[in-house]
Amino acid sequence: MKITTKVAHFTNPLYLESGRILEPYDIAYETYGELNEAKDNVILVCHALSGSHHAAGLYEGDRKPGWWDSLIGDGKAIDTTKYFVICTNTIGSCFGSTSPMSPMFPSSQEYRLKFPVITIKDMVKAQMSLLSSLGIYSVKSIIGGSMGGMQALQFAVDYPNFANSIVSLAATYAAQPWAISFNKVVVEAIRRDPRFNNGTYDRDEFKEHGCDGLAIGRVAGHISYLSPDSMDSKFGRKYVSTDGLFELFGRYEVERYMEYNTNNFSKLFDPLSYLYIVKAINTFNLSRGYESLHEAISRIKVDVHLISFSGDMLFFPKEMEHIANMLKRNGQNYSYNNIDSNYGHDAFLVEVEKFDFLIKEALEKV
Amino acid sequence: MKITTKVAHFTNPLYLESGRILEPYDIAYETYGELNEAKDNVILVCHALSGSHHAAGLYEGDRKPGWWDSLIGDGKAIDTTKYFVICTNTIGSCFGSTSPMSPMFPSSQEYRLKFPVITIKDMVKAQMSLLSSLGIYSVKSIIGGSMGGMQALQFAVDYPNFANSIVSLAATYAAQPWAISFNKVVVEAIRRDPRFNNGTYDRDEFKEHGCDGLAIGRVAGHISYLSPDSMDSKFGRKYVSTDGLFELFGRYEVERYMEYNTNNFSKLFDPLSYLYIVKAINTFNLSRGYESLHEAISRIKVDVHLISFSGDMLFFPKEMEHIANMLKRNGQNYSYNNIDSNYGHDAFLVEVEKFDFLIKEALEKV
Repeated sequence: MKITTKVAHFTNPLYLESGRILEPYDIAYETYGELNEAKDNVILVCHALSGSHHAAGLYEGDRKPGWWDSLIGDGKAIDTTKYFVICTNTIGSCFGSTSPMSPMFPSSQEYRLKFPVITIKDMVKAQMSLLSSLGIYSVKSIIGGSMGGMQALQFAVDYPNFANSIVSLAATYAAQPWAISFNKVVVEAIRRDPRFNNGTYDRDEFKEHGCDGLAIGRVAGHISYLSPDSMDSKFGRKYVSTDGLFELFGRYEVERYMEYNTNNFSKLFDPLSYLYIVKAINTFNLSRGYESLHEAISRIKVDVHLISFSGDMLFFPKEMEHIANMLKRNGQNYSYNNIDSNYGHDAFLVEVEKFDFLIKEALEKV
Repeated sequence: MKITTKVAHFTNPLYLESGRILEPYDIAYETYGELNEAKDNVILVCHALSGSHHAAGLYEGDRKPGWWDSLIGDGKAIDTTKYFVICTNTIGSCFGSTSPMSPMFPSSQEYRLKFPVITIKDMVKAQMSLLSSLGIYSVKSIIGGSMGGMQALQFAVDYPNFANSIVSLAATYAAQPWAISFNKVVVEAIRRDPRFNNGTYDRDEFKEHGCDGLAIGRVAGHISYLSPDSMDSKFGRKYVSTDGLFELFGRYEVERYMEYNTNNFSKLFDPLSYLYIVKAINTFNLSRGYESLHEAISRIKVDVHLISFSGDMLFFPKEMEHIANMLKRNGQNYSYNNIDSNYGHDAFLVEVEKFDFLIKEALEKV
């Protein structure tokens, strides 16, 4: 499978939900498979909070493939011998699209905390610009999990005829206080990190040593992505420190996992991008801009496929069920599957074999 | 109801589970009600992580009564017209018992990070010393929730005949990785707080301005004490900032709650005490020192009353059920009630009316 990585540059303004304008802006993206002549084989894949446009395939010399590689590829559920798959880095994120660390044109100064607040609606609008610039005016499907699933739903509401279907996994109709609280940990941890220094930090220093605030906050993130059951089977009460049980900072296996993953992550991800994306998740509310959630949902013309995971501790199945019930009452085309899983929220990334056939079916149905 | 607050000073050594010795040591405690002549009307109440020996009653000039005031008092479930109730501040905690901020006798220097690791077993042992010093060699019941419930269970295992009964609420037989992870947030947040400065911080500065690390970590704590449902009904998606929705640091109601509570808490509680108590919770394992959990449980001679809460997101009902099943198989005297509640872990503090009759029954049965 061929991976093409590009950055598209836009000089026209992006009018944001806040009333502010992003101009100019860049969108980094990848494509897999070939666009057919009729341009009717496009699938848009949307990433989650810490994801990027690198959804599938292996970069040369890399050992870790894209984040949904088990789903996207030749002969896989999202079959790149048939479909032309596009995944963009959301605006605000730190992997090549315009973000708080981008220069505030025409100045060469970075936005930092002057970057405008971005919403899921804005992320979706930016992706529409990219697709238009590629001459793509409708897509077969829009698919994503977690924040990606929010984008898929927002697409369906804001652009009712643009796709044939959407598939939203492990998402919700609006961030609930439980999810906002988990995000609060990282917001406070970054804000209070003296080296974050009100957004004026030295990015190179963080790249080398990591950002403490982001690492601390990310521990809370990992809790919400897992579940009591997955932690029991992954770690149990195994103790790993050579220090002995009675050393104050001796560690259980689960603590080592948290330290290792969060320290690495805090070098790779930019703390300002994290704050802005978390804000987009917190403010996500399908009904904003419409009379009610019911009105927003009623606009949808595309087939909606909803997939939740029984053990999801971040966006609970009942939140997806709430959307499904509205679609049902309205007589709209939808399917809803609650996948039996103890893994937790990350099941949408980890247990692909439990739902890939549903995505395949959804795509073949169209 | 009369409150008597005292500090008992012990010059004999307390041999800790770690092999280290605490000598001398203090135990702060309160009593409610009157000790009868036969000294057979004693109830020991054990506090949770952030609690203190101030379990009931109002101090003069205070507006907030002790943490279990709805349960303990004249005519209440733990009736102080009948019973003599004792609650001690656990060793390691910062409300008057020996803690990391105590001087290392004979030096006047504080222990700080030289304080020995304390376990739930050690907390229990220290309480036994206090009771002996008061001439109390058996008690009617030992009652506690969360870490207090761990202590009640540990009492039952380590001192099989000391009580007539124990009541353990919202606890577990051993801290599971899910709970350890929530604690990991606070451990990392405190450790990495530059003002914590490897334990050499200025306590007065924290008392005035609060400890950032503790405040950040306590947000994760509050998540684990509540539940998605209780947050939905307490906060919903209410937005409270005058800044407007599109300000990066604008806040939802749930965020304001977290900020307010954690900032206050981080002035009142000592971060080193927090680290040591969290360590005691993480290392809690009823089976340690015995062949197996089964052997530990089998030692118990007292009536065991277990109460869990269906919406507890920290120590899940199935953990208490695990203990109940063992007691049942062994034919030991026990009762187990899983209280229907959406509140979360803090139900043991907040929804007392849902279980106080069970405690009353347990006490009357004896």
